[in-house]
Amino acid sequence: MPKIVDHELQKTKVAEATWRVIQKHGIEQASVRNIAEEAGISVGSMRHYFSTQSELLSYSMKRVSERVSQRIYDTVFSGDLMQDIPSLLHEVLPTDNEKRLEMEVWFSFVVKSLSDDSLRTLRHQVDDELRSIFVTVFNGLSEGQLLLPGLDFAIEVERFYAVLDGLAIHAVMRPERVTPEVMVAVIKRHLLSLCQPDVHSMAQKPDSNAKKEQPRDT
Amino acid sequence: MPKIVDHELQKTKVAEATWRVIQKHGIEQASVRNIAEEAGISVGSMRHYFSTQSELLSYSMKRVSERVSQRIYDTVFSGDLMQDIPSLLHEVLPTDNEKRLEMEVWFSFVVKSLSDDSLRTLRHQVDDELRSIFVTVFNGLSEGQLLLPGLDFAIEVERFYAVLDGLAIHAVMRPERVTPEVMVAVIKRHLLSLCQPDVHSMAQKPDSNAKKEQPRDT
Repeated sequence: MPKIVDHELQKTKVAEATWRVIQKHGIEQASVRNIAEEAGISVGSMRHYFSTQSELLSYSMKRVSERVSQRIYDTVFSGDLMQDIPSLLHEVLPTDNEKRLEMEVWFSFVVKSLSDDSLRTLRHQVDDELRSIFVTVFNGLSEGQLLLPGLDFAIEVERFYAVLDGLAIHAVMRPERVTPEVMVAVIKRHLLSLCQPDVHSMAQKPDSNAKKEQPRDT
Repeated sequence: MPKIVDHELQKTKVAEATWRVIQKHGIEQASVRNIAEEAGISVGSMRHYFSTQSELLSYSMKRVSERVSQRIYDTVFSGDLMQDIPSLLHEVLPTDNEKRLEMEVWFSFVVKSLSDDSLRTLRHQVDDELRSIFVTVFNGLSEGQLLLPGLDFAIEVERFYAVLDGLAIHAVMRPERVTPEVMVAVIKRHLLSLCQPDVHSMAQKPDSNAKKEQPRDT
């Protein structure tokens, strides 16, 4: 009797093995051979699912993106945007080991895609999805009449999205400085800075576990 | 008579060849052999200067960092911080092809360093230098009594630095959306948002070449 193989399960094993190889050894080591070994399956079986390394990387990146979307979908929202927006962004930022791995895979994929045109479409798709979170955030704040008057939406979407990805890359580089508490404090501070003063007084004070840095000379 | 070789010139050629190889083919192709070929020198001569690939990458990254520092040093400042801070950050952001190449090399180096411990010290050093720009910015704004009262310096330094690196990675990924004009507008807007209202009225309105994005449903 032929072995019954759960193809989706196999592909998931491969995706997870790819993430681990990228994190441990860098994306340049994410060869079909190395990933087959990490996943504990034969190179032949791998080729059944993915005929090129780019296909394999794209699939693994899509699975990262799906995992983030699923977590956002599963987040229970309170209806208070001042709580819900930080909760939403907490699911994207590298606030634990799993999310840190996702973020390392994402940045590795971005850098790889700069010299591999076959990855460009997916890079743009994931970037569009992440950016659309901020369009949704601004629509919510606008509908709730929470925003300061006169904001330029296009510029504010880019600015908030830049805060997210900048924090993410800094947290990946310097987890001892850009801790989950610092990330949450920066996000809350940014959100409050966009809103009317009466929201400031209603909202809790932003977390500030980080030590105050006093101005220094020069 | 032996050939007289200008070693500094040779090393500069190697650094520039490394940047080009990284940009064209990705950091995984930045092997001693490929870079020697791109630089038009022998593998033997390369080994005279750099005995490992990590040394070669570190040297090339240091040269990127020196180039950025030199440009900052050469910038002519007006004394008006509302003009000078955007000018300063303009020299770091990928606002032209040369700076875009530097930024691509920096992000490639960051990602590579996550799985190559020998590159960690230099990664931290460059990160510290970039972050220190924002400590200087806040010190200047504070001494000029331009800042809003009650700001948490530690959080604000992380936030402004995140805006810079987030914009930089988005501009590298999506130059058609995150144009130099958008980057400058975001930086000016962020700077003004930190300052007292009388600075707002004195300062020019931020550039806003980007089209307004109206709130959409969902």
